[in-house]
Amino acid sequence: MPADPLTIGFDADDTLWHNETIFETVHERFRALLARFHDTDTVDRTLFATEMRNLELYGYGVKSFTLSSIETAIALSGGHISASEIQQVLDLGRQMLEHPVELLDGVEETVAQLAPRHRVLLITKGDLRDQERKLTKSGLAAHFSAVEIVSEKNEATYAAILRRHGIEPRQFLMVGNSLKSDIQPVLALGGLGAYIPYHLTWAAEHLDEVPDAPGRLFTLGSMRELPALVEACGH
Amino acid sequence: MPADPLTIGFDADDTLWHNETIFETVHERFRALLARFHDTDTVDRTLFATEMRNLELYGYGVKSFTLSSIETAIALSGGHISASEIQQVLDLGRQMLEHPVELLDGVEETVAQLAPRHRVLLITKGDLRDQERKLTKSGLAAHFSAVEIVSEKNEATYAAILRRHGIEPRQFLMVGNSLKSDIQPVLALGGLGAYIPYHLTWAAEHLDEVPDAPGRLFTLGSMRELPALVEACGH
Repeated sequence: MPADPLTIGFDADDTLWHNETIFETVHERFRALLARFHDTDTVDRTLFATEMRNLELYGYGVKSFTLSSIETAIALSGGHISASEIQQVLDLGRQMLEHPVELLDGVEETVAQLAPRHRVLLITKGDLRDQERKLTKSGLAAHFSAVEIVSEKNEATYAAILRRHGIEPRQFLMVGNSLKSDIQPVLALGGLGAYIPYHLTWAAEHLDEVPDAPGRLFTLGSMRELPALVEACGH
Repeated sequence: MPADPLTIGFDADDTLWHNETIFETVHERFRALLARFHDTDTVDRTLFATEMRNLELYGYGVKSFTLSSIETAIALSGGHISASEIQQVLDLGRQMLEHPVELLDGVEETVAQLAPRHRVLLITKGDLRDQERKLTKSGLAAHFSAVEIVSEKNEATYAAILRRHGIEPRQFLMVGNSLKSDIQPVLALGGLGAYIPYHLTWAAEHLDEVPDAPGRLFTLGSMRELPALVEACGH
């Protein structure tokens, strides 16, 4: 163990690798599929409402998205969508699961630089198998001392993870693109947050108010700025 | 910590609570839905083949089953299944997720009896949110010192769990209804297995050969026999 006890938690989707861009491409194709029934706004609004209604039951991830997309397609077509069009929605889901993992700029070097000197955790929500597969494809797995795939990222989840690993909140820095899932709950526990915005944010991850935590919340332009932040934190 | 170091791992579906019976009911309704296209055997065989083909991509659980069922319905109907019939398949999936948790006979008393004197783990594969929800509904959550929801139950998975919790394989007893997922991998690592068959077994869990592990594999008629086995093991 290094003398320095700072533990760094990394979010995965849109922090280490691109994800929302893949969803956006699929949204485009879904809108095109339903274009003869409804305009883009209605399709987007109905799909999002269906996803939110199903969230408690289905959880996050591509399979949940695919099921909600099929439900939306049936509803918005008044039952007139064809079986072959529903097969196209299934195919879109499959393509998302099979999509190559594309790391964000600077991720590989930054994680490789920090991992030998800090305990680094991967903390992600979503589908168990899909997240594991993406981690394997990413080539980053060996850097993480533990991988936590959870069904929701809230205060209780982070508290349980920190307790399980014997980490003091003030010695924990969480790095992620979602103020709601990665930053706010960690700040509330007394930890540190490095917020690295991604150019797209899923509406469900929007947070109206930026958390107020002087000296504990840092906004970075890219992953490349993380090592300097860690050093500036006195570690 | 008790002086006695035996750790007991419990499988969940069809070990603590009924699961395969719910799938069987849904299979019946799925066969009825496709009866005008194909006979029962063809429907069952095609659905199973579709599930197996998708297993690597989708993983286990109700959402995967629902997606494979929709794919099967489209294929077996030659694209003639209607949107409202596909909605019925979605509804079947939803009903499975919302189904009450029904504990097997003797589970509540047995787990409550063993938990104060042993470390007890829940080790289950499948969908993260669905398994968490079932555990909460079961009322058993407080008995488990840790819950491990994994994407596959093989030797590597068990080895990682035992290592993480600092458990010696020979001091670990896994209790479950699947020779393939619960018993064989644990025996291979040098642990103990308590096999409690359920009256239905999903074809994917079949194991042709019973593992050969004299003195380490025990077959029980019901969960009620577990405390006596633990005692007979010298604990």
